[in-house]
This record gives sequence, structure tokens and C-alpha cells, in this order.
Amino acid sequence: MRRNQLNSTTTHNPKHTKKPPNKMVSQKSLTLFFLLLISSSLLVHSRPTSTKKPCKRIVLYYHDTMFKGDNTANATASIIANPNGTGLGPFKFGKTVVFDDPMTTDKSLRSPPVARAQGIYFYDMKTTFNAWFAYSLVFNSTQYKGTLNIMGADMMDEPTRDLSVVGGTGDFFMARGIATFITDEVEGADYFRVVMDLKLYECY
Amino acid sequence: MRRNQLNSTTTHNPKHTKKPPNKMVSQKSLTLFFLLLISSSLLVHSRPTSTKKPCKRIVLYYHDTMFKGDNTANATASIIANPNGTGLGPFKFGKTVVFDDPMTTDKSLRSPPVARAQGIYFYDMKTTFNAWFAYSLVFNSTQYKGTLNIMGADMMDEPTRDLSVVGGTGDFFMARGIATFITDEVEGADYFRVVMDLKLYECY
Amino acid sequence: MRRNQLNSTTTHNPKHTKKPPNKMVSQKSLTLFFLLLISSSLLVHSRPTSTKKPCKRIVLYYHDTMFKGDNTANATASIIANPNGTGLGPFKFGKTVVFDDPMTTDKSLRSPPVARAQGIYFYDMKTTFNAWFAYSLVFNSTQYKGTLNIMGADMMDEPTRDLSVVGGTGDFFMARGIATFITDEVEGADYFRVVMDLKLYECY
Repeated sequence: MRRNQLNSTTTHNPKHTKKPPNKMVSQKSLTLFFLLLISSSLLVHSRPTSTKKPCKRIVLYYHDTMFKGDNTANATASIIANPNGTGLGPFKFGKTVVFDDPMTTDKSLRSPPVARAQGIYFYDMKTTFNAWFAYSLVFNSTQYKGTLNIMGADMMDEPTRDLSVVGGTGDFFMARGIATFITDEVEGADYFRVVMDLKLYECY
Repeated sequence: MRRNQLNSTTTHNPKHTKKPPNKMVSQKSLTLFFLLLISSSLLVHSRPTSTKKPCKRIVLYYHDTMFKGDNTANATASIIANPNGTGLGPFKFGKTVVFDDPMTTDKSLRSPPVARAQGIYFYDMKTTFNAWFAYSLVFNSTQYKGTLNIMGADMMDEPTRDLSVVGGTGDFFMARGIATFITDEVEGADYFRVVMDLKLYECY
Repeated sequence: MRRNQLNSTTTHNPKHTKKPPNKMVSQKSLTLFFLLLISSSLLVHSRPTSTKKPCKRIVLYYHDTMFKGDNTANATASIIANPNGTGLGPFKFGKTVVFDDPMTTDKSLRSPPVARAQGIYFYDMKTTFNAWFAYSLVFNSTQYKGTLNIMGADMMDEPTRDLSVVGGTGDFFMARGIATFITDEVEGADYFRVVMDLKLYECY
């Protein structure tokens, strides 16, 4: 966002210079100049909520195919603890999964992955299905090389939910932003697909 | 903090304009102007340690009630691995807990929660009780909607310990800051209460 | 980095003042002044990839000594789930370790630790050894007091891999940066040593 604001500022400021100042600079015009200086500083630094425009946006599909003991070729995720939950409620509280899931640009699981999602999630509510995620998106394509690191609550009952992009490396050096999850398909406990709408607001 | 500094800057700068510059701008006054320009830039951008003032502060109580097999109605946390630790020392190294704990504005567990803390902690020292936390604070009240994502070391022997607020969503869009933990009460392995003093230093 | 850029800016700007402006400030020179103002703003705010210079850099060795049941005195890490993996492939997918590992300034495990690394890692690929880390570096020395919080993918096949420093406390208040991992030694499943090259790009 900052870089975007800079761009909009640099295209905005020259307009001021079109207004011809007096040849002899008076106290009045210098005061005006100070005000312009202050306002231009504000344009650069303030982060108005009305202009939350990402400096980069990537929309990908996350495919989670669970290991069932006999599907090693296809599975990309595996339960590491409490397949049925710990017993605190009927929503698999404590079921924990590690994954190395493919990320694709369309809905098809068979599309070539443009990134891997590597990390962990676990169910954490006794009154509904709800999860918590921490993972890295590992890009190694012609377009992007690098990682985005993400964590946050996945409140599955909500149509959309926001997690935090807390850091990045490589092409995403020092990035921060929001990862919006939208459930796209659920096939029982075997497979689910989530749209991850990645919006970076800090780009270096 | 940045926004705060901006505010203090905008109230500070106008003072300069009260000093009347000469009508004819000399080399000397222009040099002075450059110095003012540089110093005002420094006021905006530097982050002096002496003025670490949060842009937002929220103090809440975290209540962790452990599931013991027969208290589903009250429990909000559950051991997901190694109830007695892995055996590396007598301090339950490796005992791991997933929680969906209520956050209240006062000490009472029966107060209406203003947020949920959803995440994981585990014990990780062989010489003392010490834990590591990663979790989200999920706000869904009239006052706040959104999440804060937090991770860090909980060195229980210290009277206060700081974790990192690494991101935020919704009303806490892109926030960063510090979450200071202060142990408030411990009732064996069944219940403990921690003050979480949330200080945000980056607000959008 | 920002503070560094500020420094370079403050040493750069005075050079402009050496060029004597005309005594009578003309429209032309004021326009020039605006251009200088804009360019100096850009110097302060833009983050060119060519000048990614850390505001702080610390290089430390991470020593991970696994608990085997009879080495409590030496062990600093312990498997908390799936010692042999979950069965998804032959690379211990799902093996999960909690650690409180010493960080030293040289290769020797017997050197006095300057920090502890407290956190978790797990193996997460079926086609190679690959891990995911989330942990805190806890400094409590005469030089540094405070923590750095780190998460990201540890793609062990790569000679170097970058994780994100997502926050800091104490002397590392609000820090962000990159932690580059370089494998230094592996002794089977008993011990491994990794160089952690910590480069902070946001310092307060």
C-alpha cells in the first residue's frame, strides 16, 4: 500500500508545481508552502481505511487430500494427533493435521501446482467445526520464488474469514497482508478445497 | 505509534510558521528552511524508544479450563499430546494443549467473553515450567470485530513476559504489537488465568 | 532499513545546501526545490531491492540434541508425536519435535549459549526430508535481553532457506526480518546443527 501511495503521491504532487508561484516569494506564499509540505507528508504517511488497496494480490486454490493409510500416491496431508478429537465435544476438538498441499490457479486438483502450502491445522471448538492454521506458501515457479508465512483462525462457519500474512521471503521479501479463506468444496473427511485470496499491503 | 507521531507532528509544525520569515527569502533563510525540513522528516520517521506509546491498548483476562473427560460443559482447552510430558525432565516437556478460551474484561470466568483465544501451547523446558503459545484472539462484539494473531515464549517464571502480536484482521487490520502476559491465578492443572495486556504499535 | 535510509538521507541532504541558491528566489529555483523535495521523500520512503541492508544482523548456531529416553542431561529436544512419521511416505511425515535448544556464537555445543530457541518443528513432505518451524529466540545475556519470533518452511534440500522473523520484544521491540538457515552438521537422528543468520530489516 505504501508504495502505491507513493506512486499516487508522485503523480499528484507535480500538479502543484503547475500553479505558478509569485516571482518574489512572500511570507504568505511560504506559509502556503509549509501547508503543502505538511499535507503532502500526510498523503504519504497516513493509511486511510478507504484506500486499502493491496500492493499485490494472488488468488489460489488449496487442495487438502487426507492420508487414509492406502493412498500415499494421492494424499498430501496426514493426521498427526487425535483422528477423532480428544472427546471435548463432537467436532473433533484437537484433531491435528500436517500438510504439504498443492496450490493451483483453478479448481482442478490435477492442474500444475504453482506453490505448496506446508504447515499445520487443528480443530479447536466444541460447538462447531472450527480450525486454526499456521503454514508457509512455498512458491517455486517461473513467476515467483519465495515464501509467504501465514497464521490465523479459520472460522469455517463464516462465508469468508481473514488470516494474517505475517512475513515473506524471496520475491515476497518482508511482505505482510491478509489471506482470505473461502470454502470451495468439502468431500467428507477425505478432501476439501479452499480459495485463498492473498492480499499483500506491505511490499518491499 | 506512527499515526500518533503524525498527529504530534501536525500539531508541532504550525508553530514554525508563526515565526515570520523575511519577505525576501535569502540564502540563509532557505538553508534554515532545509534544516527545518530535515528535522520535520526526522520527527515523522524516527521511532525513539522514549515515546513507545501504543496506538491501541486492550487489557483482557484469559481463562484456561482444562478438559478432564467429564467436564465438557465447562472445559475450553484439551490436551492433544503427552498429558504427562515426554519424560524429558519433570516439567511436562512436550505436553501440548489446544484451546478455545474465553477472554473477559475482568477476573470473573462468568463474565461475558468479549473475545475467544483460539490456538495452541506446549511446555518446552526440562528445568522449569515454561510454555510457547501461538493463537488468535477472535473478537466478535459490538465494540470490535476481527482478530489479532499472536505468538511467542511464555516464560512463566518471569512476572511479566512479552509475546508478539504479528498481525491482525477486521478492526485490527494489519496491526502489530506486544502482548504482555501476567499470571493472575493458577488452580493446579485444572484452571489458570493470565492477564493479556495487548499494546498495538502499528495501527492502520 | 528505514533508519539506515534516514541516515543516508540526512548525510545526503546537506550536500544540496552547499550549492548556493540565488538570493532572490525565482519561480525556476522554487520548482527545482519542489523536485528536490519530492526526490528526497522518495529516498526516505522507497525500499529499493538493491539496498536491502539489515538494520541489525546476528549469526548464531542452533544445536538440536534429541531425547532418547536416557539422555535427559544432554537432550534439549523431544519428539511429541509420531517418532516414525504417520506412514505417509518414508520421510517421517508428521514426526513432531518440541525443543529448547541452545544458540551459540560458534560451532561448539559446549560454548556458553547466548540465547535459547524454544518452539516446535515437524516433518511435512513425503518425497524428501523437509520441515516447518515456529519458535522464539529467547535472549538473556549481557548483550541482549528480549525475544525474536520466527516461523517458516525449512526446505532442508536447499543449501540456504529463508524463514520470517515476524516480531520481537525487549531489545528487539517490534523487529521484523529474515532468518536464513544453513545446515552445518547432521549426526543421524541424534543431533543436528544449523546456522541461523538473523537479518532484521525493521528496527525500532
